[in-house]
Amino acid sequence: MIIIGEKINGAIPSVAKAIADRDEVFIRELAERQSKYGANYIDVCASTSPDVEREALKWLMDIVQDATDVPLCIDSSDPNVIVDVLPYAKKPGLINSASDEGGKCEIIFPVIADTKWNCIALTCDNSGIPTDPAVKFNISKTLVKKASDCGIAAGRLFIDPLVNSIATVEQSLISFMEATRNIKAEFPDIHITSGLSNISFGMPLRKHINQTFLVLAMGAGMDSAIMDPSSLDMRTSLYAAEMLLGLDEYCAEFLGAYREGIIGPPKN
Amino acid sequence: MIIIGEKINGAIPSVAKAIADRDEVFIRELAERQSKYGANYIDVCASTSPDVEREALKWLMDIVQDATDVPLCIDSSDPNVIVDVLPYAKKPGLINSASDEGGKCEIIFPVIADTKWNCIALTCDNSGIPTDPAVKFNISKTLVKKASDCGIAAGRLFIDPLVNSIATVEQSLISFMEATRNIKAEFPDIHITSGLSNISFGMPLRKHINQTFLVLAMGAGMDSAIMDPSSLDMRTSLYAAEMLLGLDEYCAEFLGAYREGIIGPPKN
Repeated sequence: MIIIGEKINGAIPSVAKAIADRDEVFIRELAERQSKYGANYIDVCASTSPDVEREALKWLMDIVQDATDVPLCIDSSDPNVIVDVLPYAKKPGLINSASDEGGKCEIIFPVIADTKWNCIALTCDNSGIPTDPAVKFNISKTLVKKASDCGIAAGRLFIDPLVNSIATVEQSLISFMEATRNIKAEFPDIHITSGLSNISFGMPLRKHINQTFLVLAMGAGMDSAIMDPSSLDMRTSLYAAEMLLGLDEYCAEFLGAYREGIIGPPKN
Repeated sequence: MIIIGEKINGAIPSVAKAIADRDEVFIRELAERQSKYGANYIDVCASTSPDVEREALKWLMDIVQDATDVPLCIDSSDPNVIVDVLPYAKKPGLINSASDEGGKCEIIFPVIADTKWNCIALTCDNSGIPTDPAVKFNISKTLVKKASDCGIAAGRLFIDPLVNSIATVEQSLISFMEATRNIKAEFPDIHITSGLSNISFGMPLRKHINQTFLVLAMGAGMDSAIMDPSSLDMRTSLYAAEMLLGLDEYCAEFLGAYREGIIGPPKN
C-alpha cells in the first residue's frame, strides 16, 4: 500500500489555525509523525483564500521538506497553483490532483511529462462526479489516454474513483469497487487511491466505517490511500488486509509491525 | 448476514468444564447472550469423548431450546451422532456439518431430504482439505449434485470453503475469496459460511485478523459466519460491511444499531 498522509490540510481547523499563525512547530510535528508511521507521501494542502495560497503552500512545503525526506503530495484544487509551486519541491513527488474537469489534466500533464512526478487523477469531468461505475471507468480511460499522449505511463497515475458518502449514495462502495476492478484489469500498472473519510460523511462511527471501507476497497484492488498513518486502528486494518490478501510473504510485515508496536489492539 | 453463534462449543475450555459439571446456568447464559445479539442459529458442539457425546449434545440442545427460540445448529464431527440427536430438536435448524469426506454427506443428506433442515457442507473430501480454489469449487459442485440427488435445493446448503490459517498458507484468503465468488456465480441461491477464527490460528492480534477476514470475505460474497455475535467489534464490522456493500437500505440497520448501542466504537 502506498500511503498518502492526509493530516496537513487547511480544511482541518487546527491546521488552518497553524497556517494562519505560521506555527511551524505544529506543522513539523504532523510531518514527522506521519513520516514515522510509514507515509510514502505527505500531502500539503493550504485551503486558504486564493490570493495567499501559493505563499502558504510554499511555507508548508519548506517545513515538511526540512522535517522529513518523505516526498510531498502537492494538493490544490487550482492546477495553476500546483504548477507554480512545483519548483519549490526538492524532489519529485505526487500531484493532488488532475481530473478531466475544467481542463485540469491539460494544465498539469504537459508540465510533469518529462519529470518523475506522479499524479492523482480523479474520475470526474465537466458533467460532475459520476456514481455509475461505467462512467468512472470511461473517464479513467480518457485520463490514461491524455496522460499517454504526453508520454506519461499509466504506472505514474493514481486514479481516484471518487467514492460518495454512503449516507447519500447507497451503492457508493459497490460502484467504487466495480470501477476499481475494471480499471485495474484494463491498466494493471495503474494505482488506485481514495480519501478514506469521504465514504462516512454525515454518518456516526466514521472511523469504523472508514476502516471497513479501506479493507473492502483493498479487497477490490485499491493499492493506495489518502489517510492518517498515525491512526493505530487504521494501520492495524491495513497490515491485516495486506497480509490476508497474500501481499505479505511469511506474514513478515504484519509480525514485524506487531513486535515493534506499530500495530496492535484497537484503542479509542 | 446469517450469524451462527459459535460460543457453545466444548472445544472452548470453559464450555468443556460446564458440560462436564452439567452447569446449566453457564450454557443458558451463552445461549441468551448470543440470541440477544442477533444469532440466527446457535451452534451446539459437545466435543466430548464419543461414548458420551450423544448425551452431552442432547443436554446442550435441551438447555438452548429452553432458553431461546433461535434454531439450533447441531455440530459434531460424527454424522451418525448428528442423525441420532436430530429428533430432540423442537424445530428444524442447521447441521454442522456434511462434507464429501468419509461418506458424511451420504449419511446426512438422505436423513434431512424431506425435512426443513439446512446443512453446512465443507469443501473437503477423502484427499483432505484443498488449498486450490478450483478444487474447493469442484468439491462444492459435487456436494450440490449429491444434495440435489436427494431433493435438497442449493439454497439449503451453507458451503464452507475452509480457510486455512494465514500463518501456514499465505494465499489462504485469496483462495477462499476466489472459491466464494465462483460458487456464488454458479449457484446464486447457495449460502457461503466460515468459522472466522481459523484464519488467525497461530498469529497475534487474532481478533483484528478475524474482523478483517470477515469484511474481506463479505466483499467476496460470504453471507454467513460462524462467529461470536456478542463481540461489539465484530458486530460493528459486520454492520459497516453490510451497509457499505449496499445491503442496508437508507443505512437503516446501521443507524438503528448505532442508536440502540448494538454497535459502537471498538472496546478492548
